[in-house]
Amino acid sequence: MSMTGEFSSKQLTIVGLGLMGGSLALALREHAERIVGIDPNPEARAYAIEQGIVDEATDQLQAGVSQADTVILCAPVTTVIDVVKNRIGAYLRSNTLLIDIGSTKKDICEVMGRLPIGIHAIGGHPMTGKELSGITASDKMLYVQRPFVLCSTRRTTPATRIRALALVEALQALPIEMDAARHDRVVAAISHLPYLLSISLVATVAAEAENDPAVWQLAAGGFRDTSRLAGSDLKMMTDILSTNTQAIATLLAMFRVQMGLLETKLISQDSDKLLQALAPIREARLTWATRKTTT
Amino acid sequence: MSMTGEFSSKQLTIVGLGLMGGSLALALREHAERIVGIDPNPEARAYAIEQGIVDEATDQLQAGVSQADTVILCAPVTTVIDVVKNRIGAYLRSNTLLIDIGSTKKDICEVMGRLPIGIHAIGGHPMTGKELSGITASDKMLYVQRPFVLCSTRRTTPATRIRALALVEALQALPIEMDAARHDRVVAAISHLPYLLSISLVATVAAEAENDPAVWQLAAGGFRDTSRLAGSDLKMMTDILSTNTQAIATLLAMFRVQMGLLETKLISQDSDKLLQALAPIREARLTWATRKTTT
Repeated sequence: MSMTGEFSSKQLTIVGLGLMGGSLALALREHAERIVGIDPNPEARAYAIEQGIVDEATDQLQAGVSQADTVILCAPVTTVIDVVKNRIGAYLRSNTLLIDIGSTKKDICEVMGRLPIGIHAIGGHPMTGKELSGITASDKMLYVQRPFVLCSTRRTTPATRIRALALVEALQALPIEMDAARHDRVVAAISHLPYLLSISLVATVAAEAENDPAVWQLAAGGFRDTSRLAGSDLKMMTDILSTNTQAIATLLAMFRVQMGLLETKLISQDSDKLLQALAPIREARLTWATRKTTT
Repeated sequence: MSMTGEFSSKQLTIVGLGLMGGSLALALREHAERIVGIDPNPEARAYAIEQGIVDEATDQLQAGVSQADTVILCAPVTTVIDVVKNRIGAYLRSNTLLIDIGSTKKDICEVMGRLPIGIHAIGGHPMTGKELSGITASDKMLYVQRPFVLCSTRRTTPATRIRALALVEALQALPIEMDAARHDRVVAAISHLPYLLSISLVATVAAEAENDPAVWQLAAGGFRDTSRLAGSDLKMMTDILSTNTQAIATLLAMFRVQMGLLETKLISQDSDKLLQALAPIREARLTWATRKTTT
């Protein structure tokens, strides 16, 4: 296994053949001699084989990972934790690179740190996605130019880092290294808080609909965008929320403060002060959006 | 002026040549012998003439409306209130249909109700829009199949209603009649609350960015959608917020309750209960989205 330069693998195993796993397989096709997919769902396995996304597919974890030099766990957070904590350590060869793509990192990196010495384990979180899910939505460009966070564990050596960075580069993603606690706080702000706002908005509109069903009829583009995340997969979201509770609770408290400041200006009926408060926030949003489209 | 059947006008005057006004002019082209546009901005007027969006353009309110049989006010809410309250009543011919498209209706309908008897005044609010603004973004299809709320005033007679409904039909929009207070409560839930959540989210992320600028770097699609409304035009939004404060404060209180219920389940670390609470809310969002795409 090469520790520098371009990423290459004799056997790359992807655990979880969904949108993220399927897209990883497509993007790493040229870098791996053999790709094995593991998934309990026979339809996902059959599709992955038919489309040439993987060379082999199995529902057996041990059989699928024991010959791999690289294993990527593409499953919801609590599944990743379960696999790492209870099963995979005994199956992996020494020197295997183990990476995951779970949405929270502290708990995962913690259990990765308890794997046998010799396993190269590092946490990963690519900041990408799609409306659609499932392996049929796989897209080899899904990771291109998107941030890919890497979080070290107690089983991350310098060689682990170099190989993980090479993998991220092979995806044409943008590597960002930070510790797991910092990652979880950041995503609490930019992902988990937005989700909770979105779902609480829908809950509020649903409560209001009991007084007046016209809310559903008149809801248009503004509601659609702000409530989109409320449609997120439930298993994925409860996994995320339950493994990042403290950071999320902190961000909710910060959010209440900001909402309260604006509400105070609103209720005091001073339009000038309200406008002065809103202007720099709007500016921050526009600056971010401009920067995003130019990178 | 025909009181039944298809909408027609000898002179239609549109006050405010922006996206909404320009699109109305395009959509009503075949129904009006002459379209006059009023706007203080010479570039908007020149563009409207050049593109044949209007036949004539002026910055003089009296000159522009005094020969009209139909006048549509397409300006921010407080501008509409100012025009209706302080100026337009003396300029309009008896029997003229006066309609507006402001985003809140109670204050506007209230001042419309004090116009001279003989003016056919009715409040309007089309539930449509675009990312882009300004007359250059005009689109004759902007109103097609979109809800168009009509709110009666003390100057709305049965004939006013019929003519306003004919106008909405000419736009191929979907007329929905409701009283102004009910309208304002509904849009507080589906538009103004989402705006305040969006702007408070950006304020929270900006506050968090002072601890850790990586939030801006990692913010992706979820943040983008949930924060989109924070980029809304400030004058338009402060007008809306300041003319619908009570309903918005009510919805903010309802929102806090819903967010608090979910937060309680989150903090108690009972994933099953959290999932049970989230599931019906997610369902409500998906049901709404499905219904929207099939109508």
